Amino acid sequence: MHLFYQPDAEIHPFLSEDESRHCVKTLRLAKGAGIDVTDGRGKRHHCLIETADARRCTFRIVETDAEPARPFRIHLAVAPTKNTDRIEWLVEKAVELGVDRFSFFVSNHSERRSLKTDRLEKIAVAAMKQSLQLFLPEIEALTDFKRLLTTAADQRYIAHLPDNQPVLDLFHTARPGGTVLVLVGPEGDFSAAELDQALENGFKMVTLGKTRLRTETAALMACHTIHLVNAAR
Amino acid sequence: MHLFYQPDAEIHPFLSEDESRHCVKTLRLAKGAGIDVTDGRGKRHHCLIETADARRCTFRIVETDAEPARPFRIHLAVAPTKNTDRIEWLVEKAVELGVDRFSFFVSNHSERRSLKTDRLEKIAVAAMKQSLQLFLPEIEALTDFKRLLTTAADQRYIAHLPDNQPVLDLFHTARPGGTVLVLVGPEGDFSAAELDQALENGFKMVTLGKTRLRTETAALMACHTIHLVNAAR
Repeated sequence: MHLFYQPDAEIHPFLSEDESRHCVKTLRLAKGAGIDVTDGRGKRHHCLIETADARRCTFRIVETDAEPARPFRIHLAVAPTKNTDRIEWLVEKAVELGVDRFSFFVSNHSERRSLKTDRLEKIAVAAMKQSLQLFLPEIEALTDFKRLLTTAADQRYIAHLPDNQPVLDLFHTARPGGTVLVLVGPEGDFSAAELDQALENGFKMVTLGKTRLRTETAALMACHTIHLVNAAR
Repeated sequence: MHLFYQPDAEIHPFLSEDESRHCVKTLRLAKGAGIDVTDGRGKRHHCLIETADARRCTFRIVETDAEPARPFRIHLAVAPTKNTDRIEWLVEKAVELGVDRFSFFVSNHSERRSLKTDRLEKIAVAAMKQSLQLFLPEIEALTDFKRLLTTAADQRYIAHLPDNQPVLDLFHTARPGGTVLVLVGPEGDFSAAELDQALENGFKMVTLGKTRLRTETAALMACHTIHLVNAAR
């Protein structure tokens, strides 16, 4: 069944212009055809198309079921890469795996100090639909590093490139359940001052493996690691 | 220290034209400057530039140390995606994590039935250098699914999209050590016949999580999962 996104399906039983076009023009779905519509918050509405209008496809909700949220939440806070494709790729992949919240911050060594989140929203919606999921992550506007240090979470980690000092890896440090916040630095890594500030604020320093990972790879592997930590038999 | 790649540094103590340009033109390294050169098989040669020629930069090996190979080997066999960018991305990311061998195969539901591996080689070399690793994976030309079924490995798995039938996930099925071969299907997944053939050939069917992953995402998560299975204390 084709999955579409409409956050307020009960109040606004129609698809956005993009999704209407996709539904009517690309998929050639006609009046009476069945579609699924999610609100991105766990609800799946089983619907029938009422007017197959390529600009505003309306539907009638026949039945609704709700998927419970995961027993854990993943909050990735990332210093955007110089090349935005890499962040867009991260958003797509993390949504495929399942992620609850994205924050982006400017770090001392950041080369990029601006970020358009509207395009990231679109990519997240597409990835949610493509991977047949019913939860859309929050994507927050670019903020500064200090503000993130005061963000609440049950487990708070700051990723650090493996070097000579012994640092625990996330896989062996993280515990199942709760909200897990992981900070991932820019290409040039966090500054010593930023690492100190994070530790002072109660963050635990962790590595994400034995190799040096790019920012977007590190963030995605952190997301996957949390999933596996929670995938106990 | 800047890392370069020359598989036969002892016999041919010079960099390729691409790497010579990068070394001399981009990085502006001059005669007498120190560089590291790996053979992609675990050796790191500490070298001094002898002639800073942007077409053929020669060096003298001062000292060589060798990194032991991982106690496990990861062999990913993937049905190439319609969009080659996704496979190139997979190669970059898997090399960052550490991967030993790539095979590509044509599957019943494959949309892509050709693949240029020379470009993938370049991407693998760049990712190896960027992540400061000394091992370059083998990248094999496109072959047919049946040939892969006869490929030897200590653990052989075929990834299957999660559906209603109970299937174990790779994380709880894989054991540390040895060579692990994971087959990942195309966008349309494996055909029922292919799954049967794999099981008849002793492959274990596994999922890679609870969500529906794209081909390249599934292959990368399989690679990361094997790393974590081997990262036990």
